[in-house]
Parts: sequence; structure tokens; C-alpha cells
Amino acid sequence: MLQYAQPLQRVIEEFQRLPGIGPKSAQRLAFYILRSGPEAARALGEAISSLPDDIGRCRVCHNYTEDELCPICDDPARDRTTICVVAEVSDLMALERSGEYRATYHVLAGVLSPLEGIGPGDLNIDSLLDRVSQDGIREVILATSPSVEGDATAEHIRQSLQQYPGVVVTRIALGLPVGADLDYQDQVTIARALSGRRQME
Amino acid sequence: MLQYAQPLQRVIEEFQRLPGIGPKSAQRLAFYILRSGPEAARALGEAISSLPDDIGRCRVCHNYTEDELCPICDDPARDRTTICVVAEVSDLMALERSGEYRATYHVLAGVLSPLEGIGPGDLNIDSLLDRVSQDGIREVILATSPSVEGDATAEHIRQSLQQYPGVVVTRIALGLPVGADLDYQDQVTIARALSGRRQME
Repeated sequence: MLQYAQPLQRVIEEFQRLPGIGPKSAQRLAFYILRSGPEAARALGEAISSLPDDIGRCRVCHNYTEDELCPICDDPARDRTTICVVAEVSDLMALERSGEYRATYHVLAGVLSPLEGIGPGDLNIDSLLDRVSQDGIREVILATSPSVEGDATAEHIRQSLQQYPGVVVTRIALGLPVGADLDYQDQVTIARALSGRRQME
Repeated sequence: MLQYAQPLQRVIEEFQRLPGIGPKSAQRLAFYILRSGPEAARALGEAISSLPDDIGRCRVCHNYTEDELCPICDDPARDRTTICVVAEVSDLMALERSGEYRATYHVLAGVLSPLEGIGPGDLNIDSLLDRVSQDGIREVILATSPSVEGDATAEHIRQSLQQYPGVVVTRIALGLPVGADLDYQDQVTIARALSGRRQME
């Protein structure tokens, strides 16, 4: 029924493949690009086209990077005795946004998921154990999400790290989100917030 | 504080220029493109890059098209005695989606807006009057939005069309949206729905 010109149809279909973009947003984006003209369209299109060719993974922590090392591993001001283990680069970015963390990361590129057939061999766990064995690491912070898969992944890594008794293995804290209404939190979060309580100073 | 690799930063910034895409969605889209690989990235990127070059405006109605005429003006099954005047191509698409309309369109490419300096000369009004003067048109339906600008634009066109007394000029109906709760509609909509009431058959 709807008759888009073919190149327009193609862009709308391509946009719809992206996460969180439905038919209406895809049409709106395509029309916006048409209105913004050839130059703006080429700037966006070329940036997208070349992205996977230009970006690789950091040799040490598997963060995205243009070079051998990511900007974090390459930063001499970072504390190299602590590694924060995350599932994805987006988690690393979320931690960076907090501005609280000044050490290094390790990106697993996923979490254990028997249902999806993702086992320990599919994650960057061996390279984590390599780092811990070589570099005088003092602490590994397990910052996978507090979900079934994230917890199982953290537990698996904790067990693998038992062969390095000098390394402290920690888990990020669970509790109430800042600014939250106690009333609106789910039971599991409240239970975790209670059991994780700390003495006030 | 956040350290993206430069090509990643570029894509995220480009995405943020698009309507309805904030920093978080832009990052999510960029990471999705990285994960989806070089081939998918090129498909999307090239479709976007070439879009404004491949798509022009229909010579008759100013709809988007690859050819001289858009698929609607080129369709022999369409009734050519009626023209539905809309502000933008997206409005034309919304009317097409309804499946109710089997005649032709005219895209103004905007609405009158003294505040933004958009006058009658900036809209495709002359070409509408040309069409009406030549083609044996019987009805012009003014389907600009029922907003201050849309109403003013409709009124301006109605006056311009007075020189063709044989042409019936109509305005799309205002009233309650289907499925709406009367209780939740604004006063103006309710007033219009009342004044626009029709005898039941």
C-alpha cells in the first residue's frame, strides 16, 4: 500500500534493523537525512561504513580501539594493579561515566549463557587469567550485572581465580539505587540492600 | 572523561545529530554496528550516503521520487480530479497508510510561519494553483494539521483558490480520535467535535 521510492525504502529498512528503531522512527530518520542534504548524508554514511574496519579490540583488555592498546590501557596514570571485569564495552563506558574508577578493565564480550550456548571458552576469560598470572594484580572487581547470567559468570571467574590466592576478588555492591523510593524497589533488591548493610561512621 | 576511539566518537556524534537520538541511543547504535560487522555497516552506510543524490521531488506533486513522477502521480488507477494538499511527505504517507484515499496529493514542503520567516512564496503553492488551473480539478482537500500554522496555511490556500469557482475546497474533519476517551480530550477538540457533528443515518 505504502509506496516509497526504492532508495528511500532501502534506507528505512536498514534503519529498522538497528535496535530500538521501529518503522516510524526509521521513516523520520530517512526523511531527516533527505532534508539535510548530500553532504550531511555522506558524513553519516561514511562514518558508519568504515566503523568496523577502523575499530578493533585492545590487545590487553578487549575494549574498542583504533590502536593496539585502548586509551585506558595506554594511559600511564591508570592503576594497573586492579582490573574491573565487565561483560560489554557499554558497561565499561557506564563505569567511566561515574568518574570513580581510575584503574583498568577487562571486557569479557558476553556472559555465560547455557541457553544461548555461550560457555567460558566463548568469553575473554583466558586472557584475564593470563593478565592476573603475569602482572602483579592485587584486586579483580567482578562488575557483571546482578542477573542470573551475570552472577553465574562472576562466580565462574571467582573460582578460576582461586589459583591466585594473592589476588583479592570483589563483587560490585548491590543495593538501592541512589534517589530511589524504597517503596518502589523489588523484594530482591531490598533483601540485598539489607544483607549488604554497612556500619555508619 | 569518556574516552571513545576517534572513529567511534565520530559515529556517535553523527548519530546524535539525528532527531530523537540522544547520547545513550547513539552509543547503543554505534556498538550495534560494530558488532554487526563490516558488511552490514557498509550496507547501512552506503544506503544513507547516496540517499539525497538518488531521491528527488515529483515534478507534479513534490512527493519524494527516483523518477520524474512519483509512484502515486504515475499510477493510472489514481483519480486525478482530486488533490489532497499536505505539509510534508510524512503526512502524505500517513494518509496513504489509512488506505482510504485513491486520488493525488500536493506537498507544500512546509506551512506558513511568520515567526520562522516562511511565507507563501517558500511553499509549493504556485505549482498547486497551476495544477488547479490546468487539469480539470474538481476538489482540493486541505489536509494541513489543525494547528495555528496549519489552519493559516489552509485559509491562505482557500483564498487563493477562490479564483477557480468550479473547484470545491474542503478541509479534513476535526473531532475525537477513534478509540479516545471523551474525558481525556482537550476542550478545543471537544468543541470542534461538537460543532462538526453529523446526522446519523
